[in-house]
Amino acid sequence: MTAEIISVGTELLLGQILNSDAQYLARELSAYGYNLYYQVTVGDNMDRLCQCLKTALGRSDVVLLSGGLGPTEDDMTKEAVSAVFGLEMELDEASKSEIQCFFAARNREMTPNNLRQAMFPKGSIVLPNARGTAPGCIVEKDGKAAIVLPGPPHELIDMFDRHARGYLAKKSDAKIVSRVLRIFGMGESSVEHRVRDLMDGANPTLAPYASVGEVTLRLTAKVGAGESAGALLDPLTDEVISRLGDLVYTTANEKLEELAVRLLKENAKTLALAESCTGGLVAEKITDVPGASEVLLEGVVAYSNAAKMRRLGVNEATLEQFGAVSEQTASEMAEGAKNSSGADYGLSLTGIAGPGGGTAEKPVGLVYIALAGGGETFVKKLRLGGDRARIRTMSALYALDLLRRRLCSLPLETDK
Amino acid sequence: MTAEIISVGTELLLGQILNSDAQYLARELSAYGYNLYYQVTVGDNMDRLCQCLKTALGRSDVVLLSGGLGPTEDDMTKEAVSAVFGLEMELDEASKSEIQCFFAARNREMTPNNLRQAMFPKGSIVLPNARGTAPGCIVEKDGKAAIVLPGPPHELIDMFDRHARGYLAKKSDAKIVSRVLRIFGMGESSVEHRVRDLMDGANPTLAPYASVGEVTLRLTAKVGAGESAGALLDPLTDEVISRLGDLVYTTANEKLEELAVRLLKENAKTLALAESCTGGLVAEKITDVPGASEVLLEGVVAYSNAAKMRRLGVNEATLEQFGAVSEQTASEMAEGAKNSSGADYGLSLTGIAGPGGGTAEKPVGLVYIALAGGGETFVKKLRLGGDRARIRTMSALYALDLLRRRLCSLPLETDK
Repeated sequence: MTAEIISVGTELLLGQILNSDAQYLARELSAYGYNLYYQVTVGDNMDRLCQCLKTALGRSDVVLLSGGLGPTEDDMTKEAVSAVFGLEMELDEASKSEIQCFFAARNREMTPNNLRQAMFPKGSIVLPNARGTAPGCIVEKDGKAAIVLPGPPHELIDMFDRHARGYLAKKSDAKIVSRVLRIFGMGESSVEHRVRDLMDGANPTLAPYASVGEVTLRLTAKVGAGESAGALLDPLTDEVISRLGDLVYTTANEKLEELAVRLLKENAKTLALAESCTGGLVAEKITDVPGASEVLLEGVVAYSNAAKMRRLGVNEATLEQFGAVSEQTASEMAEGAKNSSGADYGLSLTGIAGPGGGTAEKPVGLVYIALAGGGETFVKKLRLGGDRARIRTMSALYALDLLRRRLCSLPLETDK
Repeated sequence: MTAEIISVGTELLLGQILNSDAQYLARELSAYGYNLYYQVTVGDNMDRLCQCLKTALGRSDVVLLSGGLGPTEDDMTKEAVSAVFGLEMELDEASKSEIQCFFAARNREMTPNNLRQAMFPKGSIVLPNARGTAPGCIVEKDGKAAIVLPGPPHELIDMFDRHARGYLAKKSDAKIVSRVLRIFGMGESSVEHRVRDLMDGANPTLAPYASVGEVTLRLTAKVGAGESAGALLDPLTDEVISRLGDLVYTTANEKLEELAVRLLKENAKTLALAESCTGGLVAEKITDVPGASEVLLEGVVAYSNAAKMRRLGVNEATLEQFGAVSEQTASEMAEGAKNSSGADYGLSLTGIAGPGGGTAEKPVGLVYIALAGGGETFVKKLRLGGDRARIRTMSALYALDLLRRRLCSLPLETDK
């Protein structure tokens, strides 16, 4: 079963609003096993909207339209559906009463153009709008269906939940189940190089996605009646893990910071942070996880040498001899964070995020990460590329990964 | 001049990611006077992508494509452009060298498929990628142009800024000049209510945009030959400021943290931070500004009472009597940060970000911000709504705004 989304609204084409409706509908269609090949955004223009709808009905079984249900002349989605399906518009008395009640309840005057919201292509299934004045509708003809929904996201989601979801589930011929594996420590092309042959499978499929520093592999299975999603997804999951090993840090789509907080809780361990180049980014990520306060005792953002000495007990001699960006300073920062807070682990970062501050000996992108705890201190040296934002983000991710590796008793050295 | 956007990526059609690229490009095209009638999203499928591109070139002068530039077999945007334009693919030696350098600098292995990223339709203007390995390109033929950009938003925006912006401006038949006013401390609908009548103007136009906690007003003027952008934009700017006063914190599109760092530098003042509920977010924002190390002496993330006492000198009696989330604790945190670091200002935040931890007396969303310096300490009490992420972000913005107000000698009380 194929579907298509048409988002209607000039404000979308002017970039004034973000099209979150399209993402929501796409995700739901995928979950019900519909193949979505196209999503089109078009403005409030009758000719262009009719053209898009004709094209969509020519290549898809179900077309979802969002937006253009308001009371103004600009709003013409139902009229376009009526024109393309060759159906007259007719008044829906129930909708008319509801719109009248809506205005009466708010003590507001109803204008004649609000009645346009009670007009539908003949034979429509009318979908009441619990969050606003514009009802939607489902129109069927010649084996094709158009589902017309309002544009404001809270109205669209509510109407979809109440009325469109059941319709789509009933009409669907398959169920789709996805599993997300997240990988840290290897670039997208290297990951793909190692799993390329697995990407040719039809069911389940395997697809890589990349963001700064992380690669995600999505396994998607089409599950027929009587089939088990696990039976389809488990063998492929195992094969990927056998190739990428502990670079795969989750099969449950957790972020590194979520995993780190969970592992600290499960191990009943606490953490203290000492950040220089990342300036609080690691603390910010960790405290973004609800309940982080149970495991993060404190963090220090120590940019200056004075702060490193006063707050973390770094020796002046160490700073003089090796500099603030050095293995030795990173060690003393991590140990200072751990010892002064009483935490089980101290994690530190010191480096040169740029754009200024680099030298030939210590270039922009040189970062040291240290993890103190369990009687030892491990230091990792990174040479990162990219701009300030990338260097800071990558440093934070490497630090979280180092913590994960320690908590899972995995090798701390990860250079390939 | 008409334009069209084609967003390429099966992950978009599965609803896995939000298409923020399309909004960004739509807004920029509008600012340069292009008419955008269609935006289409299509998956990683050669036939369907070629079909969309043919249709787009048939009805638009310029087609912007985003996504599908990665090193994998799934990435086929350049190949589709080459097929539809009837141009062979050829190796760009400069891109090849850059990709090799990218991998060498990171001490990572370059796989053969990375070389695909150095292949372009013959005659392309190659657009270097400062944020990743995938260069983009501009391809022109028979009066039509395709601009191929990477999918990850930070790469797309950077490449657009450096290379596509100038190309589009030159090609446009209108010169469009924009000015961005940023507003903190008032919601979008209230801002809109106060400037609504100004939004009816044709030249310059005024359009509001909202993100978490901030409202942006974009003034856009279409400037004819011999006209001055300033003469068009200045009166409208003055009118907006006369209505919104010091809620307008910049007419130069600076972020609050950029403004705060600049003001600290200009006033030769230093800052220390003490964060509880924001967990390093303020530090992270400030240190995201290059050169922040000159003004930020240090930051402390003090979640626990123990850390508040040890790191910031908060009195045990204060914590016992008033609690960690109180005006008194906020004051002592700010003063402690200032005094122990020797900074001119100490800025603190303590509150309940949720989802847990709230009580009837101290509900989720209660946040105190304190600013110590210049012989006094000012405390602001906030009652914020929304989820954990919103409460943390709003708290950080209020703290930065408080600092701005102090440094500009503006009233610190801002309740309307």
